[in-house]
Amino acid sequence: MASKSELGVLRAPNSDLTIGIDLGGTKVLGVLVSPKGELLDHIRTPTPKGQDAIVECIEDLVSSLVQLGASNYKSNVSALGVGVPGLVTRQGSLNFAANLEAGQNFELKKILEKKFPSMAIAVENDANCAGWAEWKFGAGQGVDDLVVITLGTGVGGSAIVNKNLVIGSQGFALEPGHMVIDPNGPLCNCGRKGCWEKFASGTALKELAKKYALEGKASLVLELANNDPSAITGEHVATALKQSDVQAGNIMNEFSLGVAIGLANLANIFDPEKFIISGGLVQMGDLLLDPVRDWFSNQPLGYNFRNLINIEPAVLGEMAGAWGAADLALTNDDSI
Amino acid sequence: MASKSELGVLRAPNSDLTIGIDLGGTKVLGVLVSPKGELLDHIRTPTPKGQDAIVECIEDLVSSLVQLGASNYKSNVSALGVGVPGLVTRQGSLNFAANLEAGQNFELKKILEKKFPSMAIAVENDANCAGWAEWKFGAGQGVDDLVVITLGTGVGGSAIVNKNLVIGSQGFALEPGHMVIDPNGPLCNCGRKGCWEKFASGTALKELAKKYALEGKASLVLELANNDPSAITGEHVATALKQSDVQAGNIMNEFSLGVAIGLANLANIFDPEKFIISGGLVQMGDLLLDPVRDWFSNQPLGYNFRNLINIEPAVLGEMAGAWGAADLALTNDDSI
Repeated sequence: MASKSELGVLRAPNSDLTIGIDLGGTKVLGVLVSPKGELLDHIRTPTPKGQDAIVECIEDLVSSLVQLGASNYKSNVSALGVGVPGLVTRQGSLNFAANLEAGQNFELKKILEKKFPSMAIAVENDANCAGWAEWKFGAGQGVDDLVVITLGTGVGGSAIVNKNLVIGSQGFALEPGHMVIDPNGPLCNCGRKGCWEKFASGTALKELAKKYALEGKASLVLELANNDPSAITGEHVATALKQSDVQAGNIMNEFSLGVAIGLANLANIFDPEKFIISGGLVQMGDLLLDPVRDWFSNQPLGYNFRNLINIEPAVLGEMAGAWGAADLALTNDDSI
Repeated sequence: MASKSELGVLRAPNSDLTIGIDLGGTKVLGVLVSPKGELLDHIRTPTPKGQDAIVECIEDLVSSLVQLGASNYKSNVSALGVGVPGLVTRQGSLNFAANLEAGQNFELKKILEKKFPSMAIAVENDANCAGWAEWKFGAGQGVDDLVVITLGTGVGGSAIVNKNLVIGSQGFALEPGHMVIDPNGPLCNCGRKGCWEKFASGTALKELAKKYALEGKASLVLELANNDPSAITGEHVATALKQSDVQAGNIMNEFSLGVAIGLANLANIFDPEKFIISGGLVQMGDLLLDPVRDWFSNQPLGYNFRNLINIEPAVLGEMAGAWGAADLALTNDDSI
């Protein structure tokens, strides 16, 4: 790896590369990004356990990508962004990550600044990174106000307001999955009842389909899951929908209402130009998005002056988090 | 009134005055603001009906305030901001205002730019103006991320994100009163069910107290309203609370939970440094805010890392809207 002084001398605007790393619950993805923002290369590795092992893993990835940059692109790397799955403070410390065995108060930015003193470092929530990437390079290009919602195991999100990423005073903004939409709804892991993610996540879709199956109202879906209600997944619902199964349609109808209620709440709050939906569920495409759009357009928004908001799928896929992290490392905004 | 060329010649940064106007449902308030942002004078007049009469009323107010500025402060006016109660487009057109008899598509900014070609003109939603004033001059000073909630006839709001006012793509952001918090709740005027303002507005408090009275659970409150359930107001509840009336305490307890659920949702979305509560209900002070704070601190937020958000009353009172409108006219941001 290049020494600090070498990098310092060679670093120049518009010629250096950037590294982005998406630290996931099971895998770590590192990408090399060109000065123009193009994805050049990527490396994937399993996520280790514990803070020291995670730091070592990031060091190895950075080292490999720096070498790749030097040999294949004759360029140095001057910025490193890391997206992490959890609450990240404004100081780049990971305060809580349910899906990462890294304990609390993981001062990742501080550690990386010591390890890579010649690089600009950013550490940001992974959903914020992915949302930023969709805005900069993906489905949200050219839009000033955007909300990106991730429908996966839970419901995450990010928002761009007047071209700025919404971070929050502590760094914990945009946890729309924990917006209560029904105070009598099911208990959420967070401790509140009826959080949006209890209605709109992939987990919620599975639970809903299972409920229908146990009530004898999802025969094809159940058959696809080998008649084991607890084995039902979103894919089974999608497969049944593709076969125009009416019962699967009923499941999707109820589910997509829950998605639409939360989107309508966020429309009343952010008035975005569009919504982008990412996460595992978006692989269902219009099987999911069309009923969501139907319900959404039936939610009166600001007395019906607000019905033009498009709901579109994310386009960057699994590279979004690392890509956005790399780009955020280039911003000079202290708040990021 | 000074002619365009005179004002044009005399206009200079740090020496001109600004006019702010708060166009309310019943009254119009005009204020004269010093170059340093101090309130110098104000004039109040009843709100007329119809677009032409409203424009004429604004012209008269501006004329009077310009004269006041010239005679009392030897200064010119070079900016005019107007706060209006409704959905205001990014172009400063009033699209919908339930409490103003001004029809739809009231192109107020365009009209005022023609009437006052030498002045910088801003037209903005009144809650945004009031929130901006609290941030700039009031209870929100020194904070980068702020949410201001108005508990009045309905529930309005505004948000400052990283020192920027959240406007939205069409100009319709921050209508948190129409965030659904209970899909089985009462029907809202907007057409959705269980909007936050059905639980957290002054109207909602009256309705709740009336319900308690009809169930025989609010004897002192009912007595204060001369035993007429439909005459019960928030003031009656406040008076009973001051007498430590247990039944009024029960009403306030249920009501403040509804307030807290919405605040917790907004905390999960914006992660503000503080909440400021304005509007008619805030006159109850800690009789309202203390139970709201209690419930709020019992709402798990982002897995309990977020409990430090203060909930404070607004301090600028009825001048906030006009004051903020004046200041917004000084910003050079096209988006406002």
